[in-house]
Amino acid sequence: MQKKTKAEKNKAKLSLRRLAIDTYHENVTYLHRECEVYRAEGFQALSKLKICENSRHILAVLNVVDDENIVAPGELGLSEEAFAKLGLKEGTMVNIDHAEPPDSMNAVRRKIAGERLDQDDYRQIINDITEKRYSKTEISAFLVASGQTDMDRDEVLYLTEAMLEAGERLDWDEPLVADKHCIGGIPGNRTSMLVVPIVAAHGMLIPKTSSRAITSPAGTADTMEVLANVELDISKLHDIVRKLRACLAWGGTANLSPADDIMIAVERPLGIDSIGQMVASILSKKLSAGSTHLLIDIPVGPTAKVRQMRQAQRLRKLFEFVGDRLGIQLEVVITDGRQPIGFGIGPVLETRDVMQVLQNVTEAPVDLRQKALRLAGRVLEFDPDVRGGDGYAIARDILDSGRALDKMLGIIKAQGAQTIKFKPGKLTRDVCSPANGVVTDINNLTMAHIARFAGAPMAKGAGVDLYKKLGDPVKKGEPLYRIYAEYPSDFDFAVQLSERDNGYRIGSEDEIPKVFVEF
Amino acid sequence: MQKKTKAEKNKAKLSLRRLAIDTYHENVTYLHRECEVYRAEGFQALSKLKICENSRHILAVLNVVDDENIVAPGELGLSEEAFAKLGLKEGTMVNIDHAEPPDSMNAVRRKIAGERLDQDDYRQIINDITEKRYSKTEISAFLVASGQTDMDRDEVLYLTEAMLEAGERLDWDEPLVADKHCIGGIPGNRTSMLVVPIVAAHGMLIPKTSSRAITSPAGTADTMEVLANVELDISKLHDIVRKLRACLAWGGTANLSPADDIMIAVERPLGIDSIGQMVASILSKKLSAGSTHLLIDIPVGPTAKVRQMRQAQRLRKLFEFVGDRLGIQLEVVITDGRQPIGFGIGPVLETRDVMQVLQNVTEAPVDLRQKALRLAGRVLEFDPDVRGGDGYAIARDILDSGRALDKMLGIIKAQGAQTIKFKPGKLTRDVCSPANGVVTDINNLTMAHIARFAGAPMAKGAGVDLYKKLGDPVKKGEPLYRIYAEYPSDFDFAVQLSERDNGYRIGSEDEIPKVFVEF
Repeated sequence: MQKKTKAEKNKAKLSLRRLAIDTYHENVTYLHRECEVYRAEGFQALSKLKICENSRHILAVLNVVDDENIVAPGELGLSEEAFAKLGLKEGTMVNIDHAEPPDSMNAVRRKIAGERLDQDDYRQIINDITEKRYSKTEISAFLVASGQTDMDRDEVLYLTEAMLEAGERLDWDEPLVADKHCIGGIPGNRTSMLVVPIVAAHGMLIPKTSSRAITSPAGTADTMEVLANVELDISKLHDIVRKLRACLAWGGTANLSPADDIMIAVERPLGIDSIGQMVASILSKKLSAGSTHLLIDIPVGPTAKVRQMRQAQRLRKLFEFVGDRLGIQLEVVITDGRQPIGFGIGPVLETRDVMQVLQNVTEAPVDLRQKALRLAGRVLEFDPDVRGGDGYAIARDILDSGRALDKMLGIIKAQGAQTIKFKPGKLTRDVCSPANGVVTDINNLTMAHIARFAGAPMAKGAGVDLYKKLGDPVKKGEPLYRIYAEYPSDFDFAVQLSERDNGYRIGSEDEIPKVFVEF
Repeated sequence: MQKKTKAEKNKAKLSLRRLAIDTYHENVTYLHRECEVYRAEGFQALSKLKICENSRHILAVLNVVDDENIVAPGELGLSEEAFAKLGLKEGTMVNIDHAEPPDSMNAVRRKIAGERLDQDDYRQIINDITEKRYSKTEISAFLVASGQTDMDRDEVLYLTEAMLEAGERLDWDEPLVADKHCIGGIPGNRTSMLVVPIVAAHGMLIPKTSSRAITSPAGTADTMEVLANVELDISKLHDIVRKLRACLAWGGTANLSPADDIMIAVERPLGIDSIGQMVASILSKKLSAGSTHLLIDIPVGPTAKVRQMRQAQRLRKLFEFVGDRLGIQLEVVITDGRQPIGFGIGPVLETRDVMQVLQNVTEAPVDLRQKALRLAGRVLEFDPDVRGGDGYAIARDILDSGRALDKMLGIIKAQGAQTIKFKPGKLTRDVCSPANGVVTDINNLTMAHIARFAGAPMAKGAGVDLYKKLGDPVKKGEPLYRIYAEYPSDFDFAVQLSERDNGYRIGSEDEIPKVFVEF
C-alpha cells in the first residue's frame, strides 16, 4: 500500500492542451513521439490511453505526433469532445496510464463467440459506450456481434432498458403523451409536421422531439427549422407544450438516450442496421422523451429499409414485445415505401409540401396528405373518447377546416419564427426521361443520395423536387425532377451522381412493383 | 459526357498539407470547418472522404478542424500515412469528393447477414484493405463478422490466398525452404533463435523473417536486434542466406502480406483472434516469405491462446487443409503452454537465455533448450535424408558440439553486430511469494502484461526474469521474479500492476494443471 502511494506520487505529469479537432463521437488524444516522461510508442499498439487527474479519468484513442506546433513533448493534446468530457482547463497537469479495455468488452467478446448476454452485460456495455470508453472500432465490434446473431427478444429488451437508463427522461405529467415515429429510409416523408398540428388541434398532448438528419437529406428538426427555431431548452419546451399541447423541436438538447447518438455515428457509415438495434434505438429515444402512446410507421418497398412484408411483421412483433414490457402503448402500421412521399426532398422543398397540405391548396401532394391523415387518424384513436375507425374523419375535418394550419402557426410563433427566409437553391438542373413510358421505379436510396450530395440538409434550399411519381406517364426528354443546390461544389457532386444513375426506371405499367400494405 | 467534364473542371481545389500525426494504419484527413469550397460538415456523418488528383485518389476518415494553425480553410491536411500513400508534394492542389464505401463492404454486410463469401469477395475485401480504403471501424466489422460465424475452411483458403496475392513474395530458388512459427501467446518462447542456427548448421535453408512485437513483450526481431542488425534490404538478405543458409531478420521491409499488418493493428486492441484469421495470417506471411516446409507450434494451456486440446486439434486440421491446398508442406506440433518458456521475458533477458543455451552453460534454462531441440529435430526431419525420429539426436549433437553457436555468431556478423551494448534495466523490483508452497500457476497473460508495462520491447533491457517455475517449492517472502525497467514511468506502471496481480499462484503439488501434449 505504501509502495503504491509512492509510485503514484512519482508519476510525471503532462500539461493539458485542447486541440480544435472534431473527432466525431470518439475521444482522441495526441502525444508527442519524443515525450520526455512517457514513451508514446509503448502505448500505440494498444490504441487507447487513460488520462487521469485525481479521481477523474477518461479513455482516449492515441495518435502520436511529431510536430511541436500541434503538441509539444511536455503536453497532452485532446480532441474537442475528449477535452469537454474531461472537463479541465488547458494547462492542468494530468497523468497518463495504460488503459485497461473496458470490462464490458469481455461481454462483447462473448457475444462474438455466439453467447446470449444478460441484463447486466447490456447495462455495462451501454454505460461504457455512454462514457466514451469505447473506441469506434470497439463499437463496431459490438454492433456487428449483436447484429449478426440477432439478439433474442429479451436481449433487445435489456438493450433498450440500458439505453434508456443511460440518459435523461422527460416527464410531461399527463396520462396520455402521444408520439409517432417512422423507421426512416423514405425521402420526403415529412408527416410529423402534419400529424402533430392535427393531433394537437384535437387537444391531445403531442410534444414531438425529433432528430436532425445523420445520413438522410432531412430530418424533421432540419425541416421545421426552415419555419421556426427548434433548439429550445427544456423549460421553454415545457411552457410551449403546456400552452399549445404540442411542439416540433430538436431533441438533441435533452440528452435522451445518448448511447444511441454514439452508436448511430458508427452504424450509419457502416451501413448496418439490425432490427434489434433499430427497435432499441427508437424505443429508448421515445420512452426517454416521455411518450406513453406511440404510432410506428414501417414503410415497405424494394428500396425501403424493410423490403419484405415478412420482415415488417417480424419487426412489428419485436416492437410490440419490447414496448409492452416497457409500458408504452404501441401501434405499428406498415405503409407503402416504394417511392419518396410528396414532391420535395430537402428542408425547404419539404416545408413547401407540408405548408401546401396545411393550406389545402390544389397543388398539395396528395400522397403526403393521405398518409398524414391516416397516421393522424390512428394517433387520434389513442384517445379513449374516439371510436375505433373514426380517427381518419376527425383528422380530415381538422385539416380541411384550417385548424391544423392555425395550430402550426401557433407552434411556429411560440417556438420563435425563423428570421432567415430560406429559398430553394439558385443552382438548378432538370433531369429528363431518356425514353417514353411510365415511371416504374423511383429508388429511395438514389434520390436521398442525390439530395444529400446537393447539400441537404445543411444547405436548407438544396435537394430534389420530383415532377413524376410512380405510374406517371412520361415522354422522352420530359423532366423527371429538378436538382437544387446552393454551392457549386455540391451542385457538381449531385449532377455527376444523377448522370451516373438518375434513380428512375421508365417502362410499362405492369412493371410497377406491387406492395400490399395496410393503408 | 460534355457536362461531366465541365463539372469536373469547375471543381475547386485545396492545397495539400502534411500533418505530422501518426494515425497508426488508418488514413485520416483534416478539413477546416470554414473551408471556402467544401462544407466540411456535409461530409462528416459519412465519415470518409475521397481525395483526388488527376487519376490518383485515396480514401481517408474525416476530422473537422477549427484551428487555422492545424489546417487553414483553403488547405487539406493528411496524416503521415495518408500523405505517404497519396504520394504528392505539400502544396499540390487536390479535389475532394464524397467517398463511396468500398464495393467490398457489400460482401462484409452479406457476411454479417450470415452468408458464405466466395473467392472473389475475399479478393476484393483484402485488396480494399491493402489499399487503405477501409476505416478501422470497417475492418473491425469484417473481423467480427468473419470471426463470429467462423468462415468455413474454403473461405479460410480464399482469405489466405487473397492476403498472399496482395503483397510481395520472396523466392529463394531452392526446393526446400524451411521455417518454423509459433502461434504466440507464451512469453519467453524464443525458440527461433535456437532452431535457426541448429537447422542451418545441418545445411538446410532457413531464411527466417520475423515480426516485431505488437502487443507482446518481445518478438523474435526485437530480441535478435539485441545482438545484430535486423533491418536488412532484400538483396542483402539474399546474400546472407546464400552464404550462411540462414538469417534472423525483421520481415517488415519486404511488404509480405501487408493486409495482415493492417488487420492485426485493429484485431489486437480488440482482443479478438478467430482461428480462421489466425491461419490466414500465419500462412499468408509464411508463403509470401517463400517457405516450402513449415513447422507450426501450438502451445496449449489455461492462459495460452489455445486452452483445450480439442481446439488445438481443430486448428491443426485447418492449418493442414489450407497448407495442403497452397502447396506448403506443413507439420503441426502441440506443445505445453502452461507457463512462460525459459527465465527471461523481454529482449535483453531472452537473449541471455538463448546465448546460455547456445553456449551449453549449466545455468541455461532446460525447458527452452528441450523445446528448441525438439522443434529443431522436427524441422530437420523435413530433410529427405534424415530418418523419421532421428532429428532430435542430430539437433542435440549440433547444439552440444558448439556448431549452433558458431552458426549464430556467423549470422550476427553477417547481419552486422549490434553496436549498442544493451543491458538489463537499472530499475528493479523483486516480487516475492506471499506464502509457503509450490508454484501451481504462472499466468502467461499477466507476465506478458507486466513485462510490457515495464517497457518491453521498446526498452530492450526491460522485462521480467523468472526465478521460479511451475512445481518449484517456494517459501514465504522468497522472490518469485524480478521486474526490470529503464524508465521511471514504466517502472511504476509495472510495479503497480504486479501489486494488483502478481501472476503466480502458490499452492500444493496436486493443483498444478496437467496438459497432455506431444512433447
